Amino acid sequence: MLERVLTGDRITGKLHLGHYVGSLKNRVLLQDRHECFVLLADVQALTTHFDRPGLIREHLRQVALDYLAVGIDPGKSTLFVQSLVPEIAELTVYFSMFVTVNSLRHNPTIKSEAEARGYTDMYYGFLGYPVSQAADIAFCKAALVPVGEDQIPHIEQTRKIVRRFNDLYAPVLVEPRALVGERLEGLDGNGKMSKSLGNAIALDCSTAELTDKVKRAKTDPSRIRKHDPGHPEICPIYGYHQAFNTDEAVEIQESCAKGSIGCTDCKAKIIQAMDGLLDPLRERRRLYEGREAFLDEVLISGTERARAIAKETMGEVREAMKIDYFARK
Amino acid sequence: MLERVLTGDRITGKLHLGHYVGSLKNRVLLQDRHECFVLLADVQALTTHFDRPGLIREHLRQVALDYLAVGIDPGKSTLFVQSLVPEIAELTVYFSMFVTVNSLRHNPTIKSEAEARGYTDMYYGFLGYPVSQAADIAFCKAALVPVGEDQIPHIEQTRKIVRRFNDLYAPVLVEPRALVGERLEGLDGNGKMSKSLGNAIALDCSTAELTDKVKRAKTDPSRIRKHDPGHPEICPIYGYHQAFNTDEAVEIQESCAKGSIGCTDCKAKIIQAMDGLLDPLRERRRLYEGREAFLDEVLISGTERARAIAKETMGEVREAMKIDYFARK
Repeated sequence: MLERVLTGDRITGKLHLGHYVGSLKNRVLLQDRHECFVLLADVQALTTHFDRPGLIREHLRQVALDYLAVGIDPGKSTLFVQSLVPEIAELTVYFSMFVTVNSLRHNPTIKSEAEARGYTDMYYGFLGYPVSQAADIAFCKAALVPVGEDQIPHIEQTRKIVRRFNDLYAPVLVEPRALVGERLEGLDGNGKMSKSLGNAIALDCSTAELTDKVKRAKTDPSRIRKHDPGHPEICPIYGYHQAFNTDEAVEIQESCAKGSIGCTDCKAKIIQAMDGLLDPLRERRRLYEGREAFLDEVLISGTERARAIAKETMGEVREAMKIDYFARK
Repeated sequence: MLERVLTGDRITGKLHLGHYVGSLKNRVLLQDRHECFVLLADVQALTTHFDRPGLIREHLRQVALDYLAVGIDPGKSTLFVQSLVPEIAELTVYFSMFVTVNSLRHNPTIKSEAEARGYTDMYYGFLGYPVSQAADIAFCKAALVPVGEDQIPHIEQTRKIVRRFNDLYAPVLVEPRALVGERLEGLDGNGKMSKSLGNAIALDCSTAELTDKVKRAKTDPSRIRKHDPGHPEICPIYGYHQAFNTDEAVEIQESCAKGSIGCTDCKAKIIQAMDGLLDPLRERRRLYEGREAFLDEVLISGTERARAIAKETMGEVREAMKIDYFARK
């Protein structure tokens, strides 16, 4: 049997180049050699967006389109909608019985997210995010989870939850490992590229938008004149060269450090490289845009496939927990 | 439409006279004038018994038998198994998005239960008990919930959760009210009758067991000699007379206070009254005992009925939350 892969995104807005580098790129590579499940995490979007319900509906098909645009092939990968697989909620509830509140409070990602959002109190579902993520991964017995580095504590907690389940009941679940993607700096140089920080380049942006965004991006602040020596290691643009213009990255680093390339020229090069990456995405997007019935079909049939697997796993889970009371139907 | 009633019990062991006085008696009365749903709460049993999975399976049919024995009529009331209605888990997850951790921590029943169990940390599912109870009540739009007094904070929290949901999304859920039953003292006089405290009289006990248990029960410790004046208000046996021997209770109170009735005679009277109550229960139990296929049929068909209602409610919930993405099938 092919090793299973589970990845996905919370449906809170369009995907951007940070997602591409952190996880999407790996998904496209993995789908040829693995059985890939791609989760459109609408339920988890509610952990921070429960009071903006229309927003999730608005972005669901947009994200599906992003997936197809980057080259996720619905013939190879299973795209499915979290809220339509109730078995994930069931498994979340079962896991919640033996995960302690303190282990969740001490999860570094939960802590830093709560701090970033200025929470003095947390919503119960927000605190339980790692439990629900464990259920996402465990229901389909994924062995590999392509994630960004900020998700490593969640995968670690998933591993603990799976081990605990297997110890308590029977070894039916699979302990996953993380495939950690690269981190992309935001355009403002103030942290990871992130939609909520407004420092992101969306996958669907035009050449003009891209050019405008990169031109306004922050660079090494100590470079005042063109020939001042630069510090590429603190410049987000250099990070973009490493991610999207690998062939020239070393040369650019040296030229910048020597002051022999100016920021304008350096940016022109990365704009060209990024545009070259986005071009085939734009082309694929055009193929699917407006074909809502096709997109729906991709999501509905993917969800059906995910549910079939979920039901199978839940049968094993119930048997292991000895709560399979009646003869199987 | 008949007003709906939801009640139930965690499946952690046999039911006892404390359950009878607190809730079962009301259920039997209500089933003629209301649409009654009786929840066999196996999932919630896991909040404290997740590491003893066999125990739940062992007691599920036993509790169903207790229900039929007290006179809950499966032709009138819908008996159903919590874990087989995954919509409850879904609704629990949705509610968890907007319930704060502190509001759960400050729930008086959660606090006192956690203290009684000596928890320094809590399991996430244990902390979320009120959220899951809100889902039990809300999925079937119950208007009335017969509970013991210790459950009042949970019903209050359910009311808040339902109000919040209706405010956030659309007014599709029903705010329930509690029908609070009487409280029965345990045989040891140290608190409420409770299986886990070992001070309970099970509904299936024989006359001999009943006699033995009541004979050993604690009474007013200041009565040394038969004619010493007693203090019925602190004697669990007097509480039993109030609950099960109402006709004689006033007379017994006076006789005890005057010292004109001894504890032995007083106990003989309550044994007779309790035995008179339990006798028809024993008879009905005999009708169903050993008829496992019939019991299963009661639970399976009840669960099917509960699920049909749950699916309907979840359709409305999804529509209200705007996460009904695809045309209804």
